[in-house]
Order: sequence, then structure tokens, then C-alpha cells
Amino acid sequence: MAKPQVAIIMGSDSDLETMMESAGVLTNFGISHDIQVLSAHRSPDRLRRFCTGIKKRGIQVVIAGAGGAAHLAGVVAAHTTVPVIGVPINSTPLSGLDALLATVQMPSGIPVATVAIGKAGAVNAGVLAAQILGVHSKPLQAKLLKHKQKLTKSVIEKNNRLKRRARS
Amino acid sequence: MAKPQVAIIMGSDSDLETMMESAGVLTNFGISHDIQVLSAHRSPDRLRRFCTGIKKRGIQVVIAGAGGAAHLAGVVAAHTTVPVIGVPINSTPLSGLDALLATVQMPSGIPVATVAIGKAGAVNAGVLAAQILGVHSKPLQAKLLKHKQKLTKSVIEKNNRLKRRARS
Amino acid sequence: MAKPQVAIIMGSDSDLETMMESAGVLTNFGISHDIQVLSAHRSPDRLRRFCTGIKKRGIQVVIAGAGGAAHLAGVVAAHTTVPVIGVPINSTPLSGLDALLATVQMPSGIPVATVAIGKAGAVNAGVLAAQILGVHSKPLQAKLLKHKQKLTKSVIEKNNRLKRRARS
Amino acid sequence: MAKPQVAIIMGSDSDLETMMESAGVLTNFGISHDIQVLSAHRSPDRLRRFCTGIKKRGIQVVIAGAGGAAHLAGVVAAHTTVPVIGVPINSTPLSGLDALLATVQMPSGIPVATVAIGKAGAVNAGVLAAQILGVHSKPLQAKLLKHKQKLTKSVIEKNNRLKRRARS
Amino acid sequence: MAKPQVAIIMGSDSDLETMMESAGVLTNFGISHDIQVLSAHRSPDRLRRFCTGIKKRGIQVVIAGAGGAAHLAGVVAAHTTVPVIGVPINSTPLSGLDALLATVQMPSGIPVATVAIGKAGAVNAGVLAAQILGVHSKPLQAKLLKHKQKLTKSVIEKNNRLKRRARS
Amino acid sequence: MAKPQVAIIMGSDSDLETMMESAGVLTNFGISHDIQVLSAHRSPDRLRRFCTGIKKRGIQVVIAGAGGAAHLAGVVAAHTTVPVIGVPINSTPLSGLDALLATVQMPSGIPVATVAIGKAGAVNAGVLAAQILGVHSKPLQAKLLKHKQKLTKSVIEKNNRLKRRARS
Amino acid sequence: MAKPQVAIIMGSDSDLETMMESAGVLTNFGISHDIQVLSAHRSPDRLRRFCTGIKKRGIQVVIAGAGGAAHLAGVVAAHTTVPVIGVPINSTPLSGLDALLATVQMPSGIPVATVAIGKAGAVNAGVLAAQILGVHSKPLQAKLLKHKQKLTKSVIEKNNRLKRRARS
Amino acid sequence: MAKPQVAIIMGSDSDLETMMESAGVLTNFGISHDIQVLSAHRSPDRLRRFCTGIKKRGIQVVIAGAGGAAHLAGVVAAHTTVPVIGVPINSTPLSGLDALLATVQMPSGIPVATVAIGKAGAVNAGVLAAQILGVHSKPLQAKLLKHKQKLTKSVIEKNNRLKRRARS
Repeated sequence: MAKPQVAIIMGSDSDLETMMESAGVLTNFGISHDIQVLSAHRSPDRLRRFCTGIKKRGIQVVIAGAGGAAHLAGVVAAHTTVPVIGVPINSTPLSGLDALLATVQMPSGIPVATVAIGKAGAVNAGVLAAQILGVHSKPLQAKLLKHKQKLTKSVIEKNNRLKRRARS
Repeated sequence: MAKPQVAIIMGSDSDLETMMESAGVLTNFGISHDIQVLSAHRSPDRLRRFCTGIKKRGIQVVIAGAGGAAHLAGVVAAHTTVPVIGVPINSTPLSGLDALLATVQMPSGIPVATVAIGKAGAVNAGVLAAQILGVHSKPLQAKLLKHKQKLTKSVIEKNNRLKRRARS
Repeated sequence: MAKPQVAIIMGSDSDLETMMESAGVLTNFGISHDIQVLSAHRSPDRLRRFCTGIKKRGIQVVIAGAGGAAHLAGVVAAHTTVPVIGVPINSTPLSGLDALLATVQMPSGIPVATVAIGKAGAVNAGVLAAQILGVHSKPLQAKLLKHKQKLTKSVIEKNNRLKRRARS
Repeated sequence: MAKPQVAIIMGSDSDLETMMESAGVLTNFGISHDIQVLSAHRSPDRLRRFCTGIKKRGIQVVIAGAGGAAHLAGVVAAHTTVPVIGVPINSTPLSGLDALLATVQMPSGIPVATVAIGKAGAVNAGVLAAQILGVHSKPLQAKLLKHKQKLTKSVIEKNNRLKRRARS
Repeated sequence: MAKPQVAIIMGSDSDLETMMESAGVLTNFGISHDIQVLSAHRSPDRLRRFCTGIKKRGIQVVIAGAGGAAHLAGVVAAHTTVPVIGVPINSTPLSGLDALLATVQMPSGIPVATVAIGKAGAVNAGVLAAQILGVHSKPLQAKLLKHKQKLTKSVIEKNNRLKRRARS
Repeated sequence: MAKPQVAIIMGSDSDLETMMESAGVLTNFGISHDIQVLSAHRSPDRLRRFCTGIKKRGIQVVIAGAGGAAHLAGVVAAHTTVPVIGVPINSTPLSGLDALLATVQMPSGIPVATVAIGKAGAVNAGVLAAQILGVHSKPLQAKLLKHKQKLTKSVIEKNNRLKRRARS
Repeated sequence: MAKPQVAIIMGSDSDLETMMESAGVLTNFGISHDIQVLSAHRSPDRLRRFCTGIKKRGIQVVIAGAGGAAHLAGVVAAHTTVPVIGVPINSTPLSGLDALLATVQMPSGIPVATVAIGKAGAVNAGVLAAQILGVHSKPLQAKLLKHKQKLTKSVIEKNNRLKRRARS
Repeated sequence: MAKPQVAIIMGSDSDLETMMESAGVLTNFGISHDIQVLSAHRSPDRLRRFCTGIKKRGIQVVIAGAGGAAHLAGVVAAHTTVPVIGVPINSTPLSGLDALLATVQMPSGIPVATVAIGKAGAVNAGVLAAQILGVHSKPLQAKLLKHKQKLTKSVIEKNNRLKRRARS
């Protein structure tokens, strides 16, 4: 496998189904990536080694998904200067509001690029990573344009189906 | 002035004080940018012309600040494939919770990179733009590293001041 | 079919079941309407063509349903001077609170007439459209009065059933 | 004064400053209106007489502003078939969230067209009333178009001021 | 059946299962009551006749359950001087928070005695009605004391069961 | 002074200004009462002695105001069978939402009659106490009717003032 | 069984499944404990006897789980000087937000050590009790270190499984 | 100064005024402590050194105050086995709700003992630390008892003042 450009990490393996959405998007865009469980709270030393290795391994974007008191993205952002995308995951009774606030409300100076709660957010983390890498890549920009056209086309198809149903 | 790499837009001129924080950060990083008021609701056609012009003008990142039913970042994200950073602004009685949810909860396929509510978020939008542009720029990465060291140094200084006060 | 007086649009075809409630009410009131999927984020150009066509097509009221960062109603309201009714849809983990705030908290000058979250709101969007068209239509006013009487009658019937159950 | 087309009511005279925004907009659009304090809780019989009189007096739209357990708009909507616009007012420690939910979450069959919390909402209630009356009035439609253009123009002016400030 | 001392009303027959909890408690305390569906929004005139009849029928306490924009208890409180108990019902996506705020946040001068959301609240509405009627009734006070002892006894029994389970 | 019928207690002397509203209303209704600071957390034994004394002292209604984790009303309700009215007080950064939920969400079997957050709630606690005592007191009922008429009259006067202002 | 060092109490036997998580953790750490149902509202006198007995019985930490208007932990904290850990339980429609605020927002002077809502919180209450007892116990500190290593190891194992799955 | 038993850390020097409350309480209890600014985001390496040093320095309890996406307490808890007390600080537009959720909603296995938002919480963090250290210290237990008596006494004094005021 190619050296990964994007690292996907998540706080718990129960987040895997959600975060596979990010991986799927990256695969579709032809962006190399790896994926692992790395908890800010249960494996802080491994997380730190991961952070120290970001530059050396040539990682260009990090996607971090976590629920509850979601510190994962923020802790990575504290250690690195590459863009960190945070996916708040709905894994407590508070419906992901806790994860959203714990991810997005970062203090002045250390940003986390936060996306929507859950699977929609995980998809969008993949797209955002592609957009970031696309800033200096014409081929990726072309793929992103196609992605946009596909979204539009799917809306058109849904409408056609709707019309056919209305007629019958 | 150099052709802007980053465009800062805001929904209302009452957001100007907040969004000047983004501009200040970009200036410190030596990133060319312009700034304007562009409302998704009050000037939709101008906003669309802005969106159409993003690619042609060579804009590489858009920072959009808005309050209330904050649609600005999302509408730009719908039209472009460059990364869009959303700054939720606290300008209604709901303390920016409305702007946060209206900015971050984007549907699958169209991300907005959302940062914290208010000035901390505006600062971080500037830093995040620098991180995105830094993916392919060694000089920017060096500046980002210095920025991180400065943050750490300011923590050390605050501690020294704290100790001196404790002694006296 | 008659030229539609009301256009029903929705951000995603997963909103269809909810928005069919609006269509059902309009059908009961004998108000011509059409219905389509039109995303503010996935098909912005089609949405704009829709907005430009509102006046020409003689559309008098727009009903727009959307979930999450629900920008659909607001974007239409930005482009048109006909009344726009927004139906917040519960399609994220936040139970529709995100859609409600993103729909109702419009800035000064550009209203969206917001109704309740979900199916109750979709029904009410239909009734509100009838009330708006009824301002200048005696027959519609008569139908609205009957609608009110039917609501009251259903309360009476429920009470009778309750009493019979209590007796038996 | 001309027979009022729009009635503005509010739950308390402390809401007057907010609701004068609705009145100001209607005056600008040349729409006749009256304004009074009418509490769903403190003057229920007067409110009922008001409701019974809506049709007779030729009132075509009602705008109702209230805070806290804001029942005013809903109670009027229960009695009439003309469109009722609800303005949630921020007059308790809960920042208007209570008034918003108490106004917008109406049951199936009885809509209240809800606008934003506070002054922005009061302005928009006036604009929405104009849009409703504009459905059958070419002159009002022309005025609404001008209103939209004025909003856009003000955005342009703000930008020019911004540019001049940047230059100097 | 005896002339009812307590009237239980609810906004919708879907609230019946919840409000039967109030009825059950009153039956246990030997307090005569009747129960009916009466919507503030769908049957306002019937509701008003109910309100006018409270004193004549000798009703001493009203229990009103409603969901969403729960105006029922507040509207009754506006018309009467007998204590009105409000039960917020969880019947919208917002989990009863809307009903709670719409019931409890009454303006100065017109109280609604609000209890917990849902069935626990409906039970407690029955107990509170008994406490209110008990102010001048020794037999009811005795029954309330027994009710309290039964609650305590059930805690003791649960503990015994717990201990037996722990031993086995 | 007469033996108090109503006891007003509060969790902290910073709640005094709010709770004096309850006292003022009771004075107006000619209902004897006393008022004291009694914390569920800081003086639990004194609170318990208070609870044990309720019956002996002939207290017929308790009004308890508290902020934050407002346990005061619930603890009293646990010990007594007289009606307990809870006033949530806004004394933490969470605007009284904490006090509201901690007061109203009582478990099945032990009601607290909860009123609005803050001063409006404190006024209403006084009125509700009067309504409860009024169940068996014709004179109090007459006073409550007058109170209602005064509320209505104040609405009328506010309207007259509004009209005079409009004319001038 | 050994004299219990930790007492686990809960407001209702429906909380038992959750609170057994605390018991399980304590058993794993070899910390003696007992467990019982003790309601602040349904069995206040038993709760008080429990509080009075804490010191005599040599209880060193109390863990209290409760839902809704969760007063249990606060009431115990009012009576004792041993550390009290509060577990908010999700047992009402408000998803445990009510229990969280009613547990954590204690007034100045009387702390409750609050942990997460639900089972995660119950587990953590057990771990926190072990940490507190570990302050003066080398063996417990060693066990806590092993517990931490086990958490890390489980992250490593999950990653290995993830890699194997990725390869196949 | 004595070797510190308790370490107080905070995320920003703007939290100093709040966290001095913890220090004040510890001083009153005669518990040695130090205090410093240590940001999880701005000085992660210093924070890690602090964590590594906890055991060596003989720190027995850590108190960590932070606002917004408050990760400080959680990050320390990830690295140590001594009890960590988290104080959520109200330093963003969201009134400390973000800090509360980011502090308390820790995942299974890694507790943070969370106290109230703001100064009340900071005071209580000090008291909780004293309670934890008091588990094995008779003198501290005696001081805690006195602290409780002082709280009660202050309630009595407030009542006496209240009575004198009532008399005059």
C-alpha cells in the first residue's frame, strides 16, 4: 500500500462503523490512508507517539472521530501543525451534543475543523480531507468537481423517480 | 496587494470586529487575503458571483462568519470545491448555539470545517487556513511551528508571573 | 394538472414521507401544487433556477422542508418575495433542534414562516398555505372554517368514545 | 386612519419596544394596522372578543408577540382562519428558547407562522405580513422587490465603507 | 357517580394512556373525578365552556396534560381561580422539553403547578391534587400518610429482594 | 403575628430578593406566613426539624425557592404531605435551567408544584398558595377573583396609555 | 463478608443494572462494598439513618446513582464528610441531562464528585472510589496501574483485529 | 513551603480568579498545594511532564479547571492513577455547558470527578480534595466537620439577620 496521506483515528472500536465512511470516501478519491483505534484517555502514550510520527510519516491530514468528552481531535491538534478534522460521534445518551461541543469549542490558537455529528460528518471528513489535499492537486480538484456533479445528478434522479411515482 | 489566497466573508458588518481576528492571523502568517460583507439572505446574487469567481480568482480557502440561521458557509460550500471554514457568531439571544448548529450540521457530501463560536473561532479559522495552505508550503509549516512555540512560551510566561505574584 | 399555486420542495428524498403530509392537506383544500427534491447544498444551481422561476410560474407560496443545517427555506426566501414556509425535519441525532434553529433564526429583513418539527409541521405548512391563499378567497375561507369544525368534531368524537369506554 | 389590515398584539407592554419594529415595517409598506396589549393569561376574555372580531373588522393577518410560556399566537390561531404570525420574545432567563418552543411547536391542524426571537423576528413578522398581503397585490409585490433591493444595496454600501477603511 | 372534585383534561387522545395515571391515583385516594379530551387549539370554545363551568360544577382542582406547544393548562389557569396542575407530555421529537417550558414558564400572576414530564408527572398530578384537597380534609391527610408509608415500604421490599439475590 | 399558614423557605440568602415576591403576594391576600433560609445542603438537620414541625405548626403550604442543584423543595416534599411549591432560581451560569429540572423532574409519588424560573415564579408561588388555601375559603376565592380583575384592568390601562401615545 | 469500605446506593431498583457496574469494578479491585436502594424522596428517614451510620460503619466512600431530579448524592453529601460520588442516570425523557445538572450543580461548600451519565459513569464511579482509597494504599495503586495497562492493551488488541480485518 | 499534596492547574490565566477559590479552601484546611497554568492544547509537552511527575512529586490529588472544549482534566486523568477533580469554567458564550460536558462525559475506565461550573465548583474542588485526603486523616476529618458546622452556622446567622430585618 502507498504511504498514507491521511490518518483516520477513532477513540473506540465502537466508532468503527461510523469512521469507515471517511475511509470509503478517501478510497473513492484515490487518497491513501490508514485507520486505527487510538484513545486520548485509554492509550495516551500511543496517541503521543502517533502525534510525534505525523510529520515523519508524511501524514498531511488527520481525521479523528470520538464520542462523549471527545478530546481526541483536540489532543492531536495540540501536537501537530497539519489540519485536524474532528468527527463528533453520538455514543452517549446526550445524542452527540457532548461530543460536538467537546470537539468544536477549541481555545484560540489550536483549531479543530469540526464536521457534523455521526455518519454524515464522517463522510464529510473524507470530502474535506480531499478538498484540503486538492488545494495543490489539479487531479483531485477534477475528482471533487465530479463528486459535486454526482450529488446533483442523484437529486435529479430522485426527482424523476418522484415524478414517475406521482404519474402512476 | 498580492492576489488573495484566502477570502474572508461575513453575513453582516456587525460581524466585522469578530472576523478581523481571522484577518489579523492571516496577516501574521503573511497570507494574502481580502474581506467583505456578503449575505446569503440579503445579497444572494452577489454571493453567487463571489462563488463563481472563487476558482478564477485563485482563492484557495474561504472563511465565512455568520450568526443566527448561519447559512453563509454552507451556501458557499455548495458552490465550490475549495475548503470552506465556518465561524459561528454569537449575535442572537441563543448565544451562538443556533449559528453553530446551522453551520456544522451539513448534509453528507458538502462539508463546512466549523470552528468555535465567536472570536476564538475567528482566530482559529485563520490558523486552520494557514494549516491547509501549509500542507504544500514548507515556509508556512515553519511559521506554524513558531506559532505553536509562541503559544507554549506565553503559557510559561504566565506561570512565571503567577509564581512571582505568589512569592510577593 | 392545473398550474401549481404552491410549490413543495425538500432537501432530501428521505424527507418525502414527511412532506407528503403538506401535499395531502393541499389536495384536501383543492389547492394545486407540485413537489420536488431540491437541495440547497447538493443542487444549488437547480435551486436557483427554481427560485428564478417562482414568479413566472405563478407560484404563490413555497413550502420547504429540510433537516440538519436546514438552509433550504432561507435560501429560497433570499431569492423571492412570495411567502416561504419552512418545515424543520428531524433527520439527525439532535432531534430536529438543529433544523428548527437553522430555519427560524433568519436575519432581519428575510422571513421564513416556520412551523413545528416533523409531520405536525408538514400538516401545518399545508394549512398555513391555505390560510395565506384564503386571504383573498372566500371559498378557501369557507373550507378553512370547515377544517376547523372538523378538528373540533374529532375532539367531540374522541370524548364520546372515552365516555363509552368509561361506562363499559 | 384606514381600517386596519393587520393587527399587532403583544402579551405585555414590556414587549412594546420589540413589537414597534413590526409596526414600523408595516408603515413603510403602507399597510394599515393597529397595535394593542392583549394577554392570553391576564385578559383572556378581551382576547376572545378580539378573536371573534377579526373577521368582522376585516383583519387579514395577525402578528402576536409574547415571551415565556408564549400562548398568545396559538390561542389566536385556535380561533381564527386568518394567518397568525408568532414572534417569540426574549423576556425570561431562558433567552427566548421557551417562547420559541411554545410558539412554534403547534399541534397538527393549527399553524402559527413563527419567526426569529426578538427584534429581528418582529421586523420579519412585518415583512411576512406584507408578503402574505402581496400574494394578491401587485403594488405590494413591487414594494417587496424594492425592499429586497434596498437590503442588497445596504450590503454593497457596507462593503464600500469597508474598502475605504482598508485603504486608509 | 359522585360530582367530580377534580377534572382531568388532555389536549389529545394520544395523551390518554399517560393521563390515566392521574385518574388511577385519584381513584386510589377516593377522590371523584372525570376525564376528557379538550384541546386549547382544536376545540377552544368547548374549552372555554369547560372553564366557565368549573366553579358551577364545584370542580376544586384541574389537571391538564398536553404536549408540544402545551397551552392547555395555561389557558385554563387564565380563566379560573382554582389550582391548575400542568402535566407536560413527551409527544414531539423534543422529548417533552417544549411541553415543559410551555407549561411552567407562565407570566407573573397566573400560576400553573407544573409536575414532571410524562407518566411520573401524571402520577404526581394525582398526588398533588390529593395534597391540595387534603389541606382541609383529615381523612385525605391520613391516606396521604399511608401513601408515603407504602412508598417507603416498597423501597424496603426492593432492598430485601436485592439482598436475597446477593446471597444466592 | 398570626400563626403562619404558609412557610416560605429558600436555599440561600441571595435568593431573598426573589422570594420576597412570594411574601408580598401572600401579604396582599392576607395570608399569614413566615420566611427563612434553610439549605438542604448546608443545614440538613435544621431542614429536617422544619419538616417535622410542618404539621405541628399548622403550616398548610410550603413555598421553597432554590437555585443550581435545587433539592430544597424535593427534600421537603419527601417529608411532608402538605403541598410543596418549588421556585427555581436563576443563580448559576445555566440561567435557571438546572434549578428548573432539579425541581420539576421529581419521581413518581412525590410531587413538587413547580412554577416559573425567578421572580415571575416567586409571584406565582404566592398566588398558587392562595388558590390552594382558597379551595375551602370563600373570602380567598373572592380575593383571587379581584386579583384576576386587577390583572385584566392593568392590561386595559396599558392599552389606553398605548393609544394616547399613538394619538400624540 | 468484610466490613464494606464503599456503600453503593441508588434511588430506584430500576437503576440496579446500571449501578451493578460500580459493584463489578469494586469487586475487581478487591474493595469490600454493599449495595442498596435508598430514595431521597421515598425513604428519607432510612436515607438519614444511612447517612448517620456512614462514619460508624467505617464507610470511606459513597457512590450514589439517581435519575431525574437526582437529589440522592447531594442529600448524602449534606450529611457526611466522606467523598460522595454521583452517577446521573438516564431514566426520564430528558436523556439524563436533568440528572446530570441536579447532581453536579451543588452549591459552594458541599461537593458531589460527578461522573458521566449512565453505565460509563457507573464504571467510573467504581474506578474513582478505587483511586480515592488508593491515595493511601500501595496495593490499590498497583492495581490501578494494571487497570490502566489493561485499557491500553485492549486498544492495542482492537487495532490488531482491525489490521487483520483490513488485510483479509 | 511544604511539598504540595494537591496540584491545581488551569487551562488559561483567565481562569486564575476562579481557581484561586480552590487554593483558598486548601489553605484553610492546611493542605499544601501549588498552582500553575498548563494548557492541554497550548503546552501539551509541559502538561505531559507534569503528568509524569505527579507520582514522583507525591501529589495525591489534582484539581484541573478549564473552559470551552475542556480537555485538561481528562488528559491528566488519562496519565495518572491519582484522583483528578475537574472544574468546568464558564469562559465561552455557551455558559459553561460546553466545559461541563467536555469534563464529565469521560469514557468508561477513566473518571474525572466533576464539580459545578465556575466559582462554586472551584470551592467544592477544594473541599472534595480535603474529603479525599481526609479518608485517612483524622485531623482533616475534624476540620471537615467544623467546615460543615460553619456552613450551618452561617445559615443560622442569615436567618437571625432576616428576623431582625422583619421586626424593624
